[in-house]
Amino acid sequence: MGYVETQRVVLATERDPLVLTGGAALEHVEVAYETYGELNAARDNAVMVCHALTGDAHAAGLHLGAKRRGWWDNLIGPGKAVDTDRFFVVSANLLGGCSGTTGPSSIDPATGRAYGPDFPALDMADFVAAHRRLLDHLGVGRLHAAVGGSMGGMQILEWALREPDRIDRAVLVAASSRLTTENIAFSSVARAAIMEDPDFHGGRYAEHGVTPRHGLKIARMMAHITYVSDISLETKFGHRRDTTGLDRRLGTDFEVEHYLQHQGESFLDRFDALSYLHLTRPMDYFDPFGTHPDAVPSTRFRLVSFDSDWRFPTAHSLRIRDQLAARGVSVEHTELTSPWGHDSFLLEPPGYHDLVRSFLD
Amino acid sequence: MGYVETQRVVLATERDPLVLTGGAALEHVEVAYETYGELNAARDNAVMVCHALTGDAHAAGLHLGAKRRGWWDNLIGPGKAVDTDRFFVVSANLLGGCSGTTGPSSIDPATGRAYGPDFPALDMADFVAAHRRLLDHLGVGRLHAAVGGSMGGMQILEWALREPDRIDRAVLVAASSRLTTENIAFSSVARAAIMEDPDFHGGRYAEHGVTPRHGLKIARMMAHITYVSDISLETKFGHRRDTTGLDRRLGTDFEVEHYLQHQGESFLDRFDALSYLHLTRPMDYFDPFGTHPDAVPSTRFRLVSFDSDWRFPTAHSLRIRDQLAARGVSVEHTELTSPWGHDSFLLEPPGYHDLVRSFLD
Repeated sequence: MGYVETQRVVLATERDPLVLTGGAALEHVEVAYETYGELNAARDNAVMVCHALTGDAHAAGLHLGAKRRGWWDNLIGPGKAVDTDRFFVVSANLLGGCSGTTGPSSIDPATGRAYGPDFPALDMADFVAAHRRLLDHLGVGRLHAAVGGSMGGMQILEWALREPDRIDRAVLVAASSRLTTENIAFSSVARAAIMEDPDFHGGRYAEHGVTPRHGLKIARMMAHITYVSDISLETKFGHRRDTTGLDRRLGTDFEVEHYLQHQGESFLDRFDALSYLHLTRPMDYFDPFGTHPDAVPSTRFRLVSFDSDWRFPTAHSLRIRDQLAARGVSVEHTELTSPWGHDSFLLEPPGYHDLVRSFLD
Repeated sequence: MGYVETQRVVLATERDPLVLTGGAALEHVEVAYETYGELNAARDNAVMVCHALTGDAHAAGLHLGAKRRGWWDNLIGPGKAVDTDRFFVVSANLLGGCSGTTGPSSIDPATGRAYGPDFPALDMADFVAAHRRLLDHLGVGRLHAAVGGSMGGMQILEWALREPDRIDRAVLVAASSRLTTENIAFSSVARAAIMEDPDFHGGRYAEHGVTPRHGLKIARMMAHITYVSDISLETKFGHRRDTTGLDRRLGTDFEVEHYLQHQGESFLDRFDALSYLHLTRPMDYFDPFGTHPDAVPSTRFRLVSFDSDWRFPTAHSLRIRDQLAARGVSVEHTELTSPWGHDSFLLEPPGYHDLVRSFLD
């Protein structure tokens, strides 16, 4: 695959606003997206890729002049499991995000200023509504497949239940149909870290010329622990120490701390605090089988979970499997062995990519 | 047991300073402690109770005029598992703490001001050194037993390995001889929340008339999740919602959030940020079997762990058991069934108190 580019398209206007689940209407929605491969004449080879909480449209390939490969570049590309020689792959930044798609840091056309805390609350269905408009724009009807990990899989589950004839195959990796109370508890501490940071200013931090850096960094550091595993941290860092850098007189000097510091700091450069709130909330309230009690999608489902994932352990995938099976929907689940915890969905544990490849065939 | 009182005693002076493991000398150490029951004529019925990270000297009974019973009141008292009709029970606030014993918020006699960030770094052995001085002061030689949960058990393990003939029986509940990298990762985020709070001022917050409330609250909220269990959170709160109180427009309204908010807020009233740093660090560096490679305590050990504890799961107790057994030390371990996670050590899961009672007999 050659160089790729993020494109932007306006998908809602004053005349055709995007009305959200909560009732608010967005009169200007721009969506950042990338496509890889070509849509065939029959328009039946499209694969939508849905990103997780902090992802973006850049799922595969390389941007001209930039070093960063797409976040799912190991999965998507010519000859890869999601084969861009065969499929027309679409990846879009989420509504409410901060990587090109309209979100709280975008300009509200009604005021000429950033939405800030006035950006309306979102629901998982609103992410899907923006995806749907993008596909309509691209001339894609029924999807050959939708593929997503973590919250990406949650969007696809919502989509399949809401629009039962739009998606032929769904790959849900390390996803959930309902967060546990512990999941919500971690989210809640992350939100408190952000919202109670004195620099949050009730969400009007941009007007004050600051950002709630401290809170957002701590939220990310904490969340990162839940994305990896006890085993992977032990293997990677153990009890090794590193006295360089930060003043450790009051703290400690373990290598794992430097690693978490780096994770927290680098997140500040690419993520917005209000987007973090707007994208985590729909996950916490997510309950698609409750919202769509009678939906019977025509979609075939392929679920994958990882044995070291303690954010969305296998029990989450089993709940999805059982709910779908009870409705007579075709669903298969495999738990794979992988030491890397929840983040395994971004990596290549043995068997994983083969499962995706064969399911898309 | 009638009303109890916290007492204070000066255990180090300019002429007899407490020299810490790191080399610094404290020339004035006051220790807050409580005792329950009577020391017998043979002075062989003393039981030392060691508190965990955020505990204090008030382990049992009721203070006159106060409502709060001691934190281990279900275990310690007349006729209870640690029977104050038979034993002379001693409980002391840790060195470096903030509940009566000398710590960072105490006055440094050399300057007439609070130590603040100049309070010297502590080691698990320093907590033990203060305990030892207290026992010497009380006229107690060999302990009939030492009993501690979590970090309380860690102090006792250090003590038994450092002073092999001082403790007859040791009860270590949900303890650890070595934190995992994941444990350290959580500690590290808590420390970052505190130390990077703009109100921390490099530890000189008292001089600025503030405290790092935001960071300390977030640290406590996050740590609290690790003290309970997925199951107990699910049972207690599930997905129930509660719209009272805080502005939830940008956040969510789950009951579990109110609960964590309360845990965080109430912690601010009773705990000092620098004490939090000084008491967590020794845990992270703790490695008593490495520090005392040849120690063979005469102590008999009774280890207890809980199946839902994911802070110090049973594997931690098994490591202690195996290390002690390899040295020929008498040790027994039992994993108990309990839904309440790490906090089980403060509660009464079936079989727990009976194990302690029979071991002390």
